[in-house]
Amino acid sequence: MQLPFNLRKANLKVVSLLSGGIDSSTLLYWLRSQENIDEIHALTLIYGQKHQREVDAASTIAKRLGIPHTVVDISAIKPLISKSALTSEQPVPEALETAEYYETLKATVVPNRNMILLSLAVAYAITLDYNAVAYAAHWSDRGIYPDCREEFVEAFQRAVQIGTDQPITVLAPFVRYDKADIVRIGSELGVPFELTWSCYKGGSIHCGVCSSCRERKRAFQDAGVQDPTTYER
Amino acid sequence: MQLPFNLRKANLKVVSLLSGGIDSSTLLYWLRSQENIDEIHALTLIYGQKHQREVDAASTIAKRLGIPHTVVDISAIKPLISKSALTSEQPVPEALETAEYYETLKATVVPNRNMILLSLAVAYAITLDYNAVAYAAHWSDRGIYPDCREEFVEAFQRAVQIGTDQPITVLAPFVRYDKADIVRIGSELGVPFELTWSCYKGGSIHCGVCSSCRERKRAFQDAGVQDPTTYER
Repeated sequence: MQLPFNLRKANLKVVSLLSGGIDSSTLLYWLRSQENIDEIHALTLIYGQKHQREVDAASTIAKRLGIPHTVVDISAIKPLISKSALTSEQPVPEALETAEYYETLKATVVPNRNMILLSLAVAYAITLDYNAVAYAAHWSDRGIYPDCREEFVEAFQRAVQIGTDQPITVLAPFVRYDKADIVRIGSELGVPFELTWSCYKGGSIHCGVCSSCRERKRAFQDAGVQDPTTYER
Repeated sequence: MQLPFNLRKANLKVVSLLSGGIDSSTLLYWLRSQENIDEIHALTLIYGQKHQREVDAASTIAKRLGIPHTVVDISAIKPLISKSALTSEQPVPEALETAEYYETLKATVVPNRNMILLSLAVAYAITLDYNAVAYAAHWSDRGIYPDCREEFVEAFQRAVQIGTDQPITVLAPFVRYDKADIVRIGSELGVPFELTWSCYKGGSIHCGVCSSCRERKRAFQDAGVQDPTTYER
C-alpha cells in the first residue's frame, strides 16, 4: 500500500478533528508522518454521542503520540441536531446487508455535522495562530454523508477563506481513499487499532452489528490486515 | 426609506439568528413582513459573550412577535474562540474616533463566528424540516468582519448546499444596507428599539463608549430616527 500523496504545502500548523475511531486516529498518525507539518493539535468535540468510549479512545491516541489534545463538550447543541439516531432517543439501527442498508444508515446522519465541527476547528486554528484544519473524510462515506465529499471540502475551504480573510488550508487527505485503504495506511504507520473505538452503541466491547462496527470489520477484511477488535456478535 | 427587496422565493421556513441587538431584531420584523415566509423560528446562541443582557433582549423581542425562540448555551466553545475581547479577559476597547479605530475594533472579531452560528442554524433548520436560515449581516460591518460580506454569504450557501445535499437558502437581506438603513427599516416596521441591546459591556444601561454603543448612536443620528436609548456617557 502506497501512503497518500505527501503534502506540498510547507510549515502547516494543523488542528485535526479526532473522534477516536480508525479514520481520525490514522489521520493523526499520517499528519505526524509529514515533514511539512510543524505543529499538530488534536480537537475532540463531544456533540451528544451516546457514549464516552470514543472520547476516551481519542485521549489515549493523542497521548500515545504526544500531541496536545483539547476536548470540548458542545452537547448543549443536541436539540439542534436531534434528528439523528446518534444523538436522540431513536435506536441505533442494526445495519442489514440489504437494499434498505442505505436507508437505515441515513438515520445516523447528523445534520451538517462536519461543517459545525470544522467551523469550530477553524476558529481554534485562528486562536492558536495555526493555518490549517484536518478531518478524516473518506471515500466510503461519500454516498451517505455529503459533507465527506471532495466538493464539500473545496466549497468549505472557499467559504472559510472568504469568511475569515485568512489562508486557512482544509486538509482531507483520505477523501479519495476508502476505509480499507485507511486501515492499510494505518497499519504501515503503526496505528494501535486496538485502542480505537468505532461502535455507535458504546458498550464495554464493540457490538459488531451496528453500521459502524460492520464497516470496521469489513475494512480490516478488505485490507487484509488482522482485526484486533473483540466483537460481541 | 424603501424597505429591502421582497423575497421572490416562496414557502420559506426560516431559522433566524437573533442576538437581541438592533440588526437581528429588525431582521425578525422584516422576515415577519414577508408574505412568502411560512414559518420563522428565532435562534439565540450564547457563545461566551460577557453578559446576559442581549439574551434577555432577544427573548423579549421574540415574545413580542409571538415567534418561537430557542436559546442554546454553547459557551463551552469559549476556549476555542478566546482570541476575541468579547469572550476573553481582554478589556472591551473603547472605540476612539481615530486612525486606530479599525485596529481597536479588530479586538472584537470572534474568529469564524458567523460560520459557527450559521452552521448550527442550518442543522436546526434541517431538524425542524425548514429550508432557510437568516442572519443580519450588513454593509457597515463588512470592513472589519469578513463573514458579513456578500461573497461570504454566497460561498457559505454553496458549501451548505453541497455539504447537506439540501436546497437550504441563506438569507442576509441587509447585506447591502448600512446600520442607519436598518434603523430606518426597523422604524417603519415598528421595531421596539428600546427593548434591544447593543452594548458590549452589559451594565444596567448602555455604556455609550464601546464600539457597539457608538455605532448604535451614530445609526440613529444618520437615520434621523429618535434614539430611545439611555446611555451612561
